[in-house]
Amino acid sequence: MTDFSRTRDLFHLPDGVIYLDGNSLGPLPKTALARATRTMADEWGEMLIGGWNKAQWMAMPGQIGNRIARLIGAEEGSVVIGDTLSIKVYQALASALDLRPDRRIVLSDSGNFPTDLYMAEGLLRTLDKGHELKIVAPEDVASAIDETVAAVMLTHVDYGTGRMHDIAEITRLTHEAGAISIWDLAHSAGAVPVDLAGCGADFATGCTYKYLNGGPGAPAFIYVRPGLQESARPALSGWLGHEAPFAFDLDYRPAGGVERMRVGTPPVIQMAVLDAALNAWGGIDIADVRKRSIELSELFIAEVEAGTDKLALASPRDANARGSQVSFRFHQGYSAMQALIARGIIGDFRAPDRMRFGFCPLYNTPEEIRRAAAALCEIVETDAWNRPEFLKREAVT
Amino acid sequence: MTDFSRTRDLFHLPDGVIYLDGNSLGPLPKTALARATRTMADEWGEMLIGGWNKAQWMAMPGQIGNRIARLIGAEEGSVVIGDTLSIKVYQALASALDLRPDRRIVLSDSGNFPTDLYMAEGLLRTLDKGHELKIVAPEDVASAIDETVAAVMLTHVDYGTGRMHDIAEITRLTHEAGAISIWDLAHSAGAVPVDLAGCGADFATGCTYKYLNGGPGAPAFIYVRPGLQESARPALSGWLGHEAPFAFDLDYRPAGGVERMRVGTPPVIQMAVLDAALNAWGGIDIADVRKRSIELSELFIAEVEAGTDKLALASPRDANARGSQVSFRFHQGYSAMQALIARGIIGDFRAPDRMRFGFCPLYNTPEEIRRAAAALCEIVETDAWNRPEFLKREAVT
Repeated sequence: MTDFSRTRDLFHLPDGVIYLDGNSLGPLPKTALARATRTMADEWGEMLIGGWNKAQWMAMPGQIGNRIARLIGAEEGSVVIGDTLSIKVYQALASALDLRPDRRIVLSDSGNFPTDLYMAEGLLRTLDKGHELKIVAPEDVASAIDETVAAVMLTHVDYGTGRMHDIAEITRLTHEAGAISIWDLAHSAGAVPVDLAGCGADFATGCTYKYLNGGPGAPAFIYVRPGLQESARPALSGWLGHEAPFAFDLDYRPAGGVERMRVGTPPVIQMAVLDAALNAWGGIDIADVRKRSIELSELFIAEVEAGTDKLALASPRDANARGSQVSFRFHQGYSAMQALIARGIIGDFRAPDRMRFGFCPLYNTPEEIRRAAAALCEIVETDAWNRPEFLKREAVT
Repeated sequence: MTDFSRTRDLFHLPDGVIYLDGNSLGPLPKTALARATRTMADEWGEMLIGGWNKAQWMAMPGQIGNRIARLIGAEEGSVVIGDTLSIKVYQALASALDLRPDRRIVLSDSGNFPTDLYMAEGLLRTLDKGHELKIVAPEDVASAIDETVAAVMLTHVDYGTGRMHDIAEITRLTHEAGAISIWDLAHSAGAVPVDLAGCGADFATGCTYKYLNGGPGAPAFIYVRPGLQESARPALSGWLGHEAPFAFDLDYRPAGGVERMRVGTPPVIQMAVLDAALNAWGGIDIADVRKRSIELSELFIAEVEAGTDKLALASPRDANARGSQVSFRFHQGYSAMQALIARGIIGDFRAPDRMRFGFCPLYNTPEEIRRAAAALCEIVETDAWNRPEFLKREAVT
């Protein structure tokens, strides 16, 4: 059984803060700074260009990919890190459409994260072959999969509501229709059990700065099913995905395996920080994480609903249909979230009216959840959100 | 007049090392570690998700872009950082071809860095509209520009030989033919004067880990000519290039200006390190850098040629036709470079037979150049390269 009192101590959490936004940006792992220092001072500073070999910078995208693979049920050698999630989505979808040249529908849903849809839109416009991005409601995805569909591109856990798709079932339907499945695991990796290999998923992508705590702008990851790796042709055919990058040939030849999804020079310092962050997962059973996450989120819903009737649950009530987050609708959600943040309780707001709370069992405790729920109820019950400093909207949260 | 004895002290250079590979990876700026520590401990650690606003992480790609703009003669608001150079090349070429839909030739040369050619190859295959990547010898570029050409895509300074194109003249010919010019400034930014605005160049890209000393895997930059910014349609249409990223609309609408070339979440720690590295350029006149660079490279050539006739100059003899690097051909170039590195003199090797040396006036001194030239001559004259430990080729340099 995972000892979550031990894992909390792995992170720096500021005094007086209850952090329920690790689903946007995980907190600083205590060892990350020492690791960045080592990479900068001992490796970059002392080895200079030699760091690519001596400090194994060049191998890190695959090595760290393998560490992430273990958290998402992926095969060894099927995950590589680099770039951003947006780029990885483009790579996955471009390869998928290349594998289904006779089909023209990309199926997604309105709960997908916008950048996934934007990247698809940009790719389809670039291809200019009459593809259609078909966006349906999340509950209508299964029935919309048919033999016109080239790729089913979904985010496993809806960023806004926490609604969770059934990867196994949708992948099964996707394959029955002869289509390719692409899963964005941004809100899944480190949060809920995922069994990519068991589900036969074709491509998956994700970011590492949420539940994996890799730091702001940490590199993304991409998964390619082993059976597809040799036939997936990279649209973003960069030199580090070349069979022999340092031969400096003029023609591109894709590397074997998932390494072909590498593109340019990877961000070594951010990779090192992510590598340090992943140490937190040693000895952790993701099933324990899931169990605790459900306890925390059920507790939060119960305490909020007992304390106020001014908030409407925007997440599935069934814990099994929900990721590791809970959203409530509130007509002044932005201001109420600002009021909550002013008390040191950090969640976030997602347009148009959703107050979003993420639960990270590695460091969130039941006591924090009770206090956060009580503060939230008090704010909405007493109109404490209705103060000038909470009403102004900033550009970014 | 720039005081280069002052600038050398800004960098950590290991004892006993003469570093002539800053054209591959610049050394560690002494303030970089403190800056990374601040970003990680004070910003990520204490502000958590709030860092995107409070520490201005979200604004950094444009702010740092403006700092780079000043080094390449670009207009304020015309440069943004992020991703890798490979990705930025793809973006520039995709936009260029979109702007010239009736043309099918992408003109480049055999001195272009391979990843630029690979990315073009991947894009053209993805477009599948019969485009041709036409690769000519560097000296034949000017005569190959005609009205069939959609885009002329070149690296300003050849990574292998140091041969330098005339941006103004080739851009003029490009525009006369109605084509779009794309310049890769990987070996130019911080090394040679560039006047993008004065030349009317359309797109430019570059990396920041060479002469700009941004660290391994530092983010790349892209320039879009102000007059083109509103018509350049991003193929990689990510959420941070959206007009309103936090509206979470389902449809993509490009942001105004060069910000539309942003894609996904930028690497905050690497951006901070790069920002610290750019402080070295305060008060530096790039004309002084160029003058000193020519002095150093002329000295190197003269000393090497006086000491041996076993090496053949692979770079232009005319300093005005050369960037800030010099290459010599040697039949056992790989092994000779290993022997040199074993003496603490670090250059690099580029297939098939080139020993490459970069000159960075911010920290390289004439005395270093003399010692490096003497050691190189001794190694090739005495066959000191011919030892088992120097003959084995590693995967990466």
